[in-house]
Amino acid sequence: MSEINRKSPESLQDRLEQVQELLERHRLVENLVHKQDGQHQELVEHLVHQQNLVELQRKLDELHPADVAYVLESLPLEERLAVWQLVKTERDGEILLEVSDAVRETLIADMDSHELIAAANSLDADELADLAPDLPRDIVRELMDSLDAQQRDRLKSALSYDEDQVGALMDFDMLTIRDDVSLEVVSRYLRRFDALPDHTDKLFVVDTEGLLKGVLSIKKLLVSSPDALVADVMADDPVVFDPADDAGEAAQAFERYDLVSAPVVDNLGRLCGRLTIDEMVDYIREESEAEVLNAAGLREEEDIFASVWKSVRNRWAWLAVNLCTALVASRVIGLFETAIEQLVALAALMPIVAGIGGNSGNQTITMIVRGIATGQVQVAHGKRLLRKEVGVALINGLFWGCVLAGIAYLLYGSVALAIVLLAAMTLNMLLAACMGVFIPLIRLRLGGDPALGSSVLITAITDSGGFFIFLGLATLFLL
Amino acid sequence: MSEINRKSPESLQDRLEQVQELLERHRLVENLVHKQDGQHQELVEHLVHQQNLVELQRKLDELHPADVAYVLESLPLEERLAVWQLVKTERDGEILLEVSDAVRETLIADMDSHELIAAANSLDADELADLAPDLPRDIVRELMDSLDAQQRDRLKSALSYDEDQVGALMDFDMLTIRDDVSLEVVSRYLRRFDALPDHTDKLFVVDTEGLLKGVLSIKKLLVSSPDALVADVMADDPVVFDPADDAGEAAQAFERYDLVSAPVVDNLGRLCGRLTIDEMVDYIREESEAEVLNAAGLREEEDIFASVWKSVRNRWAWLAVNLCTALVASRVIGLFETAIEQLVALAALMPIVAGIGGNSGNQTITMIVRGIATGQVQVAHGKRLLRKEVGVALINGLFWGCVLAGIAYLLYGSVALAIVLLAAMTLNMLLAACMGVFIPLIRLRLGGDPALGSSVLITAITDSGGFFIFLGLATLFLL
Repeated sequence: MSEINRKSPESLQDRLEQVQELLERHRLVENLVHKQDGQHQELVEHLVHQQNLVELQRKLDELHPADVAYVLESLPLEERLAVWQLVKTERDGEILLEVSDAVRETLIADMDSHELIAAANSLDADELADLAPDLPRDIVRELMDSLDAQQRDRLKSALSYDEDQVGALMDFDMLTIRDDVSLEVVSRYLRRFDALPDHTDKLFVVDTEGLLKGVLSIKKLLVSSPDALVADVMADDPVVFDPADDAGEAAQAFERYDLVSAPVVDNLGRLCGRLTIDEMVDYIREESEAEVLNAAGLREEEDIFASVWKSVRNRWAWLAVNLCTALVASRVIGLFETAIEQLVALAALMPIVAGIGGNSGNQTITMIVRGIATGQVQVAHGKRLLRKEVGVALINGLFWGCVLAGIAYLLYGSVALAIVLLAAMTLNMLLAACMGVFIPLIRLRLGGDPALGSSVLITAITDSGGFFIFLGLATLFLL
Repeated sequence: MSEINRKSPESLQDRLEQVQELLERHRLVENLVHKQDGQHQELVEHLVHQQNLVELQRKLDELHPADVAYVLESLPLEERLAVWQLVKTERDGEILLEVSDAVRETLIADMDSHELIAAANSLDADELADLAPDLPRDIVRELMDSLDAQQRDRLKSALSYDEDQVGALMDFDMLTIRDDVSLEVVSRYLRRFDALPDHTDKLFVVDTEGLLKGVLSIKKLLVSSPDALVADVMADDPVVFDPADDAGEAAQAFERYDLVSAPVVDNLGRLCGRLTIDEMVDYIREESEAEVLNAAGLREEEDIFASVWKSVRNRWAWLAVNLCTALVASRVIGLFETAIEQLVALAALMPIVAGIGGNSGNQTITMIVRGIATGQVQVAHGKRLLRKEVGVALINGLFWGCVLAGIAYLLYGSVALAIVLLAAMTLNMLLAACMGVFIPLIRLRLGGDPALGSSVLITAITDSGGFFIFLGLATLFLL
């Protein structure tokens, strides 16, 4: 009996380091060969070089596809492509499925059409559908032609759904049984397979028309008497999904009901696919990453070793939006230039009013957007939420406003200035609270996505609003 | 054969509405009873009232615990507690496990010690460990005493780990077998159970000492010959975890290797628990929510219907930090008050320099922090990443700087001012890029968490830095 091989995350890090070390050695040898051009030397180095490559290749062959993907994502472009060349062609497909979109692009760009078709041929229809959007169009057409009728139909169906729909995430690795056989027969049927599809925790019970009648969980199969009929032990009220369902809601259902797999049925009740927890976990992770990236002003996931130009393209859109909102805020200040000329302390204090308002507004809007996303906040809650947020803003505004007014008094010695600052901070935080509740609820009622750019919008309002309120109050009462 | 009961997310929303409608009716009747105080009337209304409550209770009994949790989270405090009273006591425990931390607090606060102990008694040791931190201390002590020795040991062990460690997330529902028996024997053994633990996709093979020797996947059990020995068909290199492992890394391993369950072994190789995908999914979701909330300046998950005071407490810490950084920026401006007095356009333009720098710096630091979290960025990559980010910042700074300089020239008609603005924007974006790379890498080397408050830190630097660079350059070249 061999020892347990510990595939824990630490050792993954170790393996990445091993690959990097081998690459390093490979490069050192290459440099040596370039420098010392003697015939004999070169031959020796060539052998050493080959040996390193062979060792690296052996290492890669041993790794799980997800680990190869991780290694590829962790390497700068040049080394990434060197390693990619060493990966066996028959593994290309599964590894392309595992890498991030940004890295996949760099790998596909490095492959010729022959290699791409060879890689794609090792995949199932649902996996092909995941890859297809990144492939050149003529390759996709060629692949379509090479598939049999069933696979082609499945690929077409998967491609017909939006990437946020269940239909795009489902697979077709389903085991179906009839309900009028005994569990003994089911067990014999299963033993005819060499292996069962991944994440098979239930068998789907269908009638001769393909209509789903229930599911038989494997656990139930194992504990029940072999003589029992499928119809008697199956569950006839499973959680099912429609291919047009929203993938995010499906993921929430997987979380809520602790599912491992679930049938997908069309509107006639016919079984047409299967969702599994691994796809849902990937979906949850991607969604949450998109949220974080978006909040930071990045359009999409970026290959960390991407070229400067690629990164510029990924980032310019949000910078442009930011520039516009900053310009508006700047023009608001421009309105009050005479006031600032007369009392220059205003210039130093105004960013505080805007900044605290922005922070407070972001707190509110994040809460509301989150509540909408989980379905816990509806338009009808508006009044109640507004009351609460206004209350919070009032307390925070008055408290921090007093702290700040105290500091401003110490710095500038003017009671009137301190009072204006306190009033402006409180008013701007009230504005932030109202907008933080209104904006997402209005977008919800209009049918938009309340999350998109919400932080930019609220910051724009609290910046311009904060400058306007503070400088306006100062003009009215101080000058 | 009954129809398939479609438990899709839409119908969950429906059920929430049904509960709300019943609550509404219940309240209407109560109002009626209060208004019309005739003896006879009251009796009739009382009956109607009772009927509504009974219907509501029936509805709740039918719901999955996770759905009851969802309903509770979606109701304002008063109605939430009304519904909570209607939930059967024996279900309290499982529902408390499902609700969010913030909502759980409100429910526990509404229960007396008798109810709490009844609820806790229905839970396993690992579930109790999840609940224990929210329970009053004397209740936990009382519970400890009521457990048998094995359960108490398990509870103590689970409580001894940090909530970010595998030991705190593992459960003890493991099926173990020996390796010298046939699959036939294993099947017979399994049939002795009424039900198998959730997420049982593999059986753990241990020797007489409790040392893990391998795992037998259920799928393998189903397709293999009943005469085969466990030792011959089991996998002897499963992915295993240590109770002290980081939960986030375990979650990544679950994603990477598409696991459903995995054994947890101590440093002697003894099986001590089990991790399952549902716990990992919850962990992933909680981590990503914490990231989003943190980025918005919220300390922790907030019950959307929390009281004003609770919300103020949740939010004040980040506001305080923000106030400090804003004060520093304000003092930087204060240094240049004479410059602003002489050229008031500076006051209007300076927020643009600071704002764009902040956006750009956040883009950089988010990329780097994310790369560190996934292990793809190491300290050794610093130079390469710095080169790339500086390149991106230079291009963006010069491009947007030129756009802005053009606008400033149109507004103020001064070439010198436009050039100073261009220079300040570019320099501040370079500062943002350098700090966006340095800060997380330095914190990584020092062993801290690079994510914590990274956005606040970089924004503080680009604000104060932007004001200083712009006003400083203006003082040097324009006055």
